[in-house]
Amino acid sequence: MQQAIAVLDSGVGGLTVASEIMRQLPKEEILYFGDTARAPYGPRTPGEVLMFTRQIIDFLLLYRPKMIVLACNTATAAALAPLQASIAIPVVGVIQPGARAAIKHSRTRSVGVIGTTGTIRSGAYEEALRRIAPDIDVVSLACPSFVPLVEEGRYQSEEAQLAVYEALAPLRGLALDCLILGCTHYPFLRSYIAECMGKSVALINSADETAREISTILYSQHLENRSRIKPRHRFFCSGSHSLFRTIAESWLGIPVPVSRVDMPVIQMVNP
Amino acid sequence: MQQAIAVLDSGVGGLTVASEIMRQLPKEEILYFGDTARAPYGPRTPGEVLMFTRQIIDFLLLYRPKMIVLACNTATAAALAPLQASIAIPVVGVIQPGARAAIKHSRTRSVGVIGTTGTIRSGAYEEALRRIAPDIDVVSLACPSFVPLVEEGRYQSEEAQLAVYEALAPLRGLALDCLILGCTHYPFLRSYIAECMGKSVALINSADETAREISTILYSQHLENRSRIKPRHRFFCSGSHSLFRTIAESWLGIPVPVSRVDMPVIQMVNP
Repeated sequence: MQQAIAVLDSGVGGLTVASEIMRQLPKEEILYFGDTARAPYGPRTPGEVLMFTRQIIDFLLLYRPKMIVLACNTATAAALAPLQASIAIPVVGVIQPGARAAIKHSRTRSVGVIGTTGTIRSGAYEEALRRIAPDIDVVSLACPSFVPLVEEGRYQSEEAQLAVYEALAPLRGLALDCLILGCTHYPFLRSYIAECMGKSVALINSADETAREISTILYSQHLENRSRIKPRHRFFCSGSHSLFRTIAESWLGIPVPVSRVDMPVIQMVNP
Repeated sequence: MQQAIAVLDSGVGGLTVASEIMRQLPKEEILYFGDTARAPYGPRTPGEVLMFTRQIIDFLLLYRPKMIVLACNTATAAALAPLQASIAIPVVGVIQPGARAAIKHSRTRSVGVIGTTGTIRSGAYEEALRRIAPDIDVVSLACPSFVPLVEEGRYQSEEAQLAVYEALAPLRGLALDCLILGCTHYPFLRSYIAECMGKSVALINSADETAREISTILYSQHLENRSRIKPRHRFFCSGSHSLFRTIAESWLGIPVPVSRVDMPVIQMVNP
């Protein structure tokens, strides 16, 4: 099927999923939506995140994609189940692939998860992990300082390194054998996280793992793109597109023409 | 769904898949069939392998499994497509999961595959890899000496180590960044293969990867076992069950009561 895969996120985080789809599935075309005007999603209520996600999907469905990827852990936690129940094409989240990869990797059954406040508060990773492997031991930690660093393009800085060391302090010394990067923005900070956690803790990248599962689902549902036409990806964002474009071009290594799409902004009074 | 997952192989090789299903999906029940009377499948014709696979599945369907896993690369190469077209429940092979994991892992796009003569001759890995990523570079090598060493229980011996070094000599020094163990028997020889190939070559274990994809498919098709009843696995084999049982108990680390099931044996005159 030549139709595109629609990928959406609160901002630039989902680009880590998009770049892995491009690398692991080079024949597939992507429609990307970064909701930069309303990022971060982490501190918002699940109802608000569900509403925002529905608004974006209503827009993306105009392009007739064959699959929707919630490339945002907060949106997956808040919206995956209701969207799967109401949309006819496959809707894939980023939590289950990370959970499955952690179960595959972990020998000690002791797994760490870091994510936004919304994701960690939802308990979605614990649920996904324990639903499959009830004996698994999960330590979760919210790292609310990470997403703004990435969205503002300050992810390669001494400030970012310090923020990572400070936030992850409670996890150091615990006997984890893997740590799930439970937010698609976190691979931007990967080198600092790896350095801080040490070599004995494998980092599970929900972006890589989601691209792998998209491949499985496309194959098992006969949705792969078999054409030889080179894919033409499209990018949309709801806020300032110049910073989005700078970050996207740096992360993806390709020119990224961006279209701006207005979305109804709800200002947070107490973020 | 409380129904079992049916797993079949020419002999003990599929136990590497079964043990990974038990580890990664501890709530799922397994029906295992090892066709020990007719192993190895590697040197047989695709038509014969398809016939044997159909006979085993006809038997296993009596137990109403929810999914069939061809835990044998030779059987996957010969029989996956016709079986998927004729059976109503999901039929999962071991080649596509290994191919997808290699694409995910490989940064150099230079991938090695080892397997039986039947698997390598079929070109099934090249096809699975290039169908997704046309630019990938694949080096394939048949290792016909490996399966008999495992089926005869001689997989931990100096003889096995020597056989591994001898067979893999053509691959050493090539710039591969991963090597797919394209036969479910090969994880029994994993430590020798890893030692021979060196640390720069990651081994992709099609058994681990298949269990991971079974998890994805159960989830996406709402087939997971949600009950709390401890699974009771069942084991069948067509040939001598004492050696099968010894190897199975040693690999799985649990008691393995085996039932014998007769299958029509076709002797190979020129194996």
